Amino acid sequence: MASSPLRVTVWHEYRHDNPDSEHPNATAMELYPDGMHGAIKSAIEEHLGSDVVVTTATLDQDDDHGLSDELLANTDVMTWWGHMAHDKVKDEWAQKVAQRVREGMGLVVLHSGHYAKPFKLLMGTNCHLKWREAGEKERLWVLSPGHPITAGMTKDYIELEHTEMYGEHFDIPDPDELVFTSWFEGGEVFRSGCVWKRGAGKVFYFRPGHETFPIYHNAEVRRVIANGVKYVAPPEGLAKPITVTWDEPQRDLGAEVPGGVVPYREGSPCIKESLSPIEAEHEVDESLHKQANE
Amino acid sequence: MASSPLRVTVWHEYRHDNPDSEHPNATAMELYPDGMHGAIKSAIEEHLGSDVVVTTATLDQDDDHGLSDELLANTDVMTWWGHMAHDKVKDEWAQKVAQRVREGMGLVVLHSGHYAKPFKLLMGTNCHLKWREAGEKERLWVLSPGHPITAGMTKDYIELEHTEMYGEHFDIPDPDELVFTSWFEGGEVFRSGCVWKRGAGKVFYFRPGHETFPIYHNAEVRRVIANGVKYVAPPEGLAKPITVTWDEPQRDLGAEVPGGVVPYREGSPCIKESLSPIEAEHEVDESLHKQANE
Amino acid sequence: MASSPLRVTVWHEYRHDNPDSEHPNATAMELYPDGMHGAIKSAIEEHLGSDVVVTTATLDQDDDHGLSDELLANTDVMTWWGHMAHDKVKDEWAQKVAQRVREGMGLVVLHSGHYAKPFKLLMGTNCHLKWREAGEKERLWVLSPGHPITAGMTKDYIELEHTEMYGEHFDIPDPDELVFTSWFEGGEVFRSGCVWKRGAGKVFYFRPGHETFPIYHNAEVRRVIANGVKYVAPPEGLAKPITVTWDEPQRDLGAEVPGGVVPYREGSPCIKESLSPIEAEHEVDESLHKQANE
Amino acid sequence: MASSPLRVTVWHEYRHDNPDSEHPNATAMELYPDGMHGAIKSAIEEHLGSDVVVTTATLDQDDDHGLSDELLANTDVMTWWGHMAHDKVKDEWAQKVAQRVREGMGLVVLHSGHYAKPFKLLMGTNCHLKWREAGEKERLWVLSPGHPITAGMTKDYIELEHTEMYGEHFDIPDPDELVFTSWFEGGEVFRSGCVWKRGAGKVFYFRPGHETFPIYHNAEVRRVIANGVKYVAPPEGLAKPITVTWDEPQRDLGAEVPGGVVPYREGSPCIKESLSPIEAEHEVDESLHKQANE
Repeated sequence: MASSPLRVTVWHEYRHDNPDSEHPNATAMELYPDGMHGAIKSAIEEHLGSDVVVTTATLDQDDDHGLSDELLANTDVMTWWGHMAHDKVKDEWAQKVAQRVREGMGLVVLHSGHYAKPFKLLMGTNCHLKWREAGEKERLWVLSPGHPITAGMTKDYIELEHTEMYGEHFDIPDPDELVFTSWFEGGEVFRSGCVWKRGAGKVFYFRPGHETFPIYHNAEVRRVIANGVKYVAPPEGLAKPITVTWDEPQRDLGAEVPGGVVPYREGSPCIKESLSPIEAEHEVDESLHKQANE
Repeated sequence: MASSPLRVTVWHEYRHDNPDSEHPNATAMELYPDGMHGAIKSAIEEHLGSDVVVTTATLDQDDDHGLSDELLANTDVMTWWGHMAHDKVKDEWAQKVAQRVREGMGLVVLHSGHYAKPFKLLMGTNCHLKWREAGEKERLWVLSPGHPITAGMTKDYIELEHTEMYGEHFDIPDPDELVFTSWFEGGEVFRSGCVWKRGAGKVFYFRPGHETFPIYHNAEVRRVIANGVKYVAPPEGLAKPITVTWDEPQRDLGAEVPGGVVPYREGSPCIKESLSPIEAEHEVDESLHKQANE
Repeated sequence: MASSPLRVTVWHEYRHDNPDSEHPNATAMELYPDGMHGAIKSAIEEHLGSDVVVTTATLDQDDDHGLSDELLANTDVMTWWGHMAHDKVKDEWAQKVAQRVREGMGLVVLHSGHYAKPFKLLMGTNCHLKWREAGEKERLWVLSPGHPITAGMTKDYIELEHTEMYGEHFDIPDPDELVFTSWFEGGEVFRSGCVWKRGAGKVFYFRPGHETFPIYHNAEVRRVIANGVKYVAPPEGLAKPITVTWDEPQRDLGAEVPGGVVPYREGSPCIKESLSPIEAEHEVDESLHKQANE
Repeated sequence: MASSPLRVTVWHEYRHDNPDSEHPNATAMELYPDGMHGAIKSAIEEHLGSDVVVTTATLDQDDDHGLSDELLANTDVMTWWGHMAHDKVKDEWAQKVAQRVREGMGLVVLHSGHYAKPFKLLMGTNCHLKWREAGEKERLWVLSPGHPITAGMTKDYIELEHTEMYGEHFDIPDPDELVFTSWFEGGEVFRSGCVWKRGAGKVFYFRPGHETFPIYHNAEVRRVIANGVKYVAPPEGLAKPITVTWDEPQRDLGAEVPGGVVPYREGSPCIKESLSPIEAEHEVDESLHKQANE
C-alpha cells in the first residue's frame, strides 16, 4: 500500500435505510442509523486506521451521485452498495467508475451490487443469480488458504446466522481468484468472494450484506471488507494512466512513468518506428487508419 | 457439433473492400473481389463442408446491419470483422449480439474487430493495443499443444510474410485459454489467439487479417478460422436460454430442458421454496424486492 | 471425438469390492457384484455405445497393475478409482500414466482418486480435503451453463440422497474450468467437478462415488462420467508426441505431424538455426549444455 | 510484507561459476566472481534493503545442499538457480522445498531452473522448452499493467542485448498470472514471467539469466527479481501450516490460528461432527478408512 494514506470512497445507493427516501424500510433504518455507508466506512476505519482516509458518496447527493471528477481522480479504492435503484445511476457515471478501475482504482462490490452498472460493465455478463429471503444460515468457506483477504479469520469459514440466500448459477466470467464459496442452509452454493483484474485495476466481489440483516455489524464481515479494500488497492508507484493517440511515438511514453509501476495505457498508438530492423518493407496506405481513428 | 448443420453468420463491416462505399481502398478491392466476408465464408465452407450453412450479413445491408432477430436466433456461430466503422454499429444491435453469446452462440472476432462493440461489451475492457503498418513478418506460436484450434497445422507456428503489427499491452481480461502468441519482425509480441467463456457461450479472438494484405487467402489462417468456428460452436443439446422472473419457482425451470445441456438463465429468480429444510425462519419483507425488480 | 472408436481404460484398485482381497467390504460387494470398474464401464458403454471400446484394468491383476505399455499407448481416455491402496501403485506406473496425460490422453479421476499418485503428480499439490461419512445429502450445482459435461441434465444440480462428505479446502491448483460445486447437508462445500489441462491432455476430477453407496448406479452420475470421458478425449488428429533431443533441428519436427493437431513435444531441442536473421552474433560455449543434457 | 524482515534464501547450484567445481566456465567465473548467488543476493538487498535478511545456500555445501530443516522452516522466500546438476539435488530435498511452498513459502525460479526438481514437482508437467545460444536480443513485454512485479520499470518492456533464447511451447500449466512474454531476435516468443499459486504459497518463474551473460548485473532484471521476491512473500499473519490427522476434530483447528491468515492444512481430517444437523443418518463402516490412513 502507498505510504501516504489510501483514499477510499464508500459509495452507497442509500434508499432503504434513508428516512428521507421515498420508501424507507423500518428494519433497515433501525439496523443502520448512519446508513449502511456509515457502517461500511467504520469497518474500514476500524481495521485500516490511519492507513486510510474514507469519504462517502451517495446516489441522490447531487447530480453526480456524489462522484465529482475530482473525487474519482483521487480515489484509490471504491466500495459499492446498490439494490433498488441501480437504474438511477447515470450511464456516464457508471462508465467513469469502470474506466477508473481499468486505470488502476480498486473496486469492492458488495451484495446486491452484483447488478450495479459499473460491475456489469466490467464483467461483460448479466450477473444474474438465484435468491431467497428466509433468514437462513450461510457459511463462507475459504478456498484459498494464505490469501491476504482471509487475514484475521480464526476458522476456515465465516458463519452468518441469518442471511438472504444467493445461489448459482452466478452469471460472471470465471474469477481470476476464487477466495470464498458459500453454503446455504436451504440447499444452494454461491461463489461469494471473487477477484478479477481489469486493465490495471482489481475488482473484489463480496456477497455478505443486506438491508434487513445486521451483516455489516458482523465482526468477521467487517474485517474481510477492510482486507478486500487493502487487497485491491493499486500498488505503490502506480502512476496516472497514459493517454496516447494514434501517432504518438512509443519512446515518449516510457519517459512519463519514472520509477512507477507500468501503468494502464488508454488508446492504441501507432508505433511507426520499429524497435528492430524490418527487412522487407511493404508499401501501405495509412490514410484509412487516420480516418478511422480521428 | 450438432448433427444438423452448424448455422454460421459471417458479419462484415464491408467498407474498405466495397466499390459502392464512400472511400473504397483499391488494394482491398483487388485482394477481395467478393469482399472479405466472401473470403471468410469460403474458408469456413472449404473446411467444414456440409457440416455448416454459412450466411453473410453486412453493416449497410439494411437498418439491422443484416442482423434480423430471426437470423440472430438461428445463428450458432458468428464471425465478426470491422475496422473503420465500429461506431456505426447501433448500440442495440451490439447488445443483441453480446447477449446471444451469453445464451450460447459462439463468436469469432477477427483482427481489427478487437475494437468492435460486441467484443468490448463482452470483455469489459477497452481492448487497446499498439499497431504499425510496415508489412513485416509475423509468426503465430502455438502455446497449447493438442488444442483443436490447431488442427491441420504441420508446424508449431504459422508464418505470415507481410502483416500489420499488433503489440502488447492488449487490454483484455486474462484469456481463459491462450492458444497463440505472435512474434513480429519489428520487435513486439501479441496474444493473437484467445478464448473466453461468457455465460453459456464462447468467444475466440484471432488476430490475422487486414484489408490490404491477402491474409484471408492464406491456407493456414483459413484453416484456423474454420477450426475456431467449430471450437466455439454450442455443444449438441444446448437448449434455448431460460428467461425467468423474480417469482418463478425453480422446479419449473428444470422441466424446460429435457435432455439438453444445462442452458443459460436470463434473470434472477426468487427460489421461495427451499430445497432443504431451514431451521430458524426469519421474517422478511419482500415488498422492496418486488419494487426493485418489477 | 475420433471417427474410430474411443479407446477407454477403466482402472480400478478393486479391493473393497473384491471377494478375493484381504479385507473385502460386505456392502461394497453387494452393491457392486461386478466391481466398481464393472459399473463404471457399463456407464460409459451405456452412453457412448459404439463410439467407445472399454477395457478394464486392476491393481493386482499383474505386475503392471494391468497397465502394459501397449495398453497405455493405445488408451485415449483412462478413468481412475483408488482409495485404500494408493501406495501400492508403483511409482513407475504412476509416472507413466501422468506422462500419457501430458502426451494427450484424457484422465477422469473419481472420488477418493483425489489421493491417487498420477493425479497428485499432475496437480503438484497434496490434494487434501475434509471428509465425513454420515450418509448425508449432496447437491452438485452447475457453475458453467452450456458445458458439454452437463449434457442430459434436466436440472441445474444433481441430488444424491446419501453420500460421504468431502469439504474444502481441497488442496488443488485453481481449476482451468470449474463445472460443479457441491453442497452438503452437514454444512460444507466442495469443488466437485474440475478440469485442468496438462501438456496436450486434460484431467477431469469428478467427486461422486464411494464403495458403500450405490453412487455408480445413479443415472445422472453415470451420464456425467460418460460426458467427462468424451470431454477429455484427445481431439481428432492428435498425433503421437514428438520426442526431441538437444540438437535436433526444428524443421524436421514440423514434418512429423502431417495434418494433425500440434502435438506435445517431449524434450528441449536446441534450435541452432534461427528462423529470423540475428544481427550481433555472440560467441557461446555449448559444451556445458551437451554435458548437462547427455 | 511482514513488519519483521523477510527471510530470503538464495539457493544456487554453483558449478559453472565455481572455480572449485569440476568443469568451471571461464566466462561465468569472470562475470560472477562472487558466484551468481552473490549477484542475486546483492540485487535483492539493493532493492529491499532492511526489509530483508538474505542467506545463500549451494548444492555442494553440505549433505543437505545447504538446506537444513531449520533454514527451510525459517525461509519466507527462496530463489532457485540450477542448470547442469538438477539431477544432483536429492529427491527428498526437492520434496521438502515443494512442500514448504504449499505451506506458504514463496519461490522465485530463475532461467534454467525451469528444469529444477522442486519446480517440476509443483507444476506437474515436464517444463520443456526450445533454446538457442546465439547471443541474440530479447525484449520482455509487460502483459499486466499495474502489476507490482513491474515496479520501477520506465518502459513497458525490458530489453536485453545478448541472451540465450528460450522458445515456446513451454510445457507448464497455464499460469495464474502472465506478467511478461519475451520476443527474441531469432523469431521465437516465450512466457518469461509467470505466477502460480500452490497451496498457500506462490511461485514466480522469471526467465532472464545465464551463466555466460551478465544478466544478473542488469539493473532492470535485478529490480524485477527483487519485486518478485516481495510479490511471492507470504502475507503478514500467515501462520505455520496445520498438520491434521484423520480423526482430529475441526473446532480445534480454528483455535490454532489466532489472528492470522487462514493457513495451509496438511492432511485430510475426518470431521465427525457436522456443522449443521443431518436428517437421515446412514450407517457406515469407518474401519477401512482408518486402515487406509494409518
